[in-house]
Amino acid sequence: MNYCSHCGSAVRFAVPEDDDRPRFLCDACGTIHYQNPRIVAGTLPVAGERVLLCRRAISPRKGFWTLPAGYMENGETVEEAALRETREEARAAVIEPSLYTLISLPHINQVYMIFRGELEGDYAAGPESLEVELFTESEIPWDELAFPTIERTLKHFFDDRRRDAFELHLSRIGAEERERYFGSA
Amino acid sequence: MNYCSHCGSAVRFAVPEDDDRPRFLCDACGTIHYQNPRIVAGTLPVAGERVLLCRRAISPRKGFWTLPAGYMENGETVEEAALRETREEARAAVIEPSLYTLISLPHINQVYMIFRGELEGDYAAGPESLEVELFTESEIPWDELAFPTIERTLKHFFDDRRRDAFELHLSRIGAEERERYFGSA
Repeated sequence: MNYCSHCGSAVRFAVPEDDDRPRFLCDACGTIHYQNPRIVAGTLPVAGERVLLCRRAISPRKGFWTLPAGYMENGETVEEAALRETREEARAAVIEPSLYTLISLPHINQVYMIFRGELEGDYAAGPESLEVELFTESEIPWDELAFPTIERTLKHFFDDRRRDAFELHLSRIGAEERERYFGSA
Repeated sequence: MNYCSHCGSAVRFAVPEDDDRPRFLCDACGTIHYQNPRIVAGTLPVAGERVLLCRRAISPRKGFWTLPAGYMENGETVEEAALRETREEARAAVIEPSLYTLISLPHINQVYMIFRGELEGDYAAGPESLEVELFTESEIPWDELAFPTIERTLKHFFDDRRRDAFELHLSRIGAEERERYFGSA
């Protein structure tokens, strides 16, 4: 951030009065520009023994497999965002979605929220997917998953299914774990 | 938003190519300025039959009662944000926090996440609180609560306690429900 989005003047990065962390400040119009984490909402569509994955047609991680998920937009609920992303990326619907993993990624200012639910009807690749397929646990391309959040969600799912007890999993993923995927943080 | 925060040129509000909703666009440098919902994280501190509430020292809703909660910051997890807000507003700590209510407010682009946990040790008003007190269900100032998210979380808690079964509650609050609190949307 270089300029004030309200008045166009140059901003500076400093701790405002009565605050405890630096923000982008506009001395011309007085606006404080707060920056906050973003929510990535998606689903884990389940069809019997299999789960649905999308192969990404766009960067980052083009060609790698992911669950249908993306940034939550203004004006929608978390669940609406998850179902919208599922429609857009996998042309698919999920019934009775229930929140399943909630993963904070503080080093990249994201919070993942993945809903588990039954796949209903057909599926097909949307414009951001190269292909969309169903996989059993042993068929999943574990070395070609796009993000550590996806790997963790899938591992929870197959563990929980063996125990036949599904619960909400809250966790965090730090820079170390992301390096395994991306080579550097 | 009037100006590009990257290059300082005037922005326009239009649907980008390959997108389906309007964004603030900078024709000079090509930046698309996405705007996304913000997370409000907080806690429901429980001490036996009583819960802890803070009376707000700042607007909005100055003088009304709330749970300790505030905007999640970059660089922290949701749980860290909830515990930080509890320290800042109520000088209090909560042990074994578990996610309890997750409420989307699509008309104001917020997602509330409130963690339930046992109050540990003392409490006191922080700089954003006029006072901090413990209340039984019948003592709660139901007509002087700051936000509908707070009322809903408290109602869930006392209902669940009667049943002795606590679970995660996902819901949404629309403009209608907020009007009860604020007079107009």
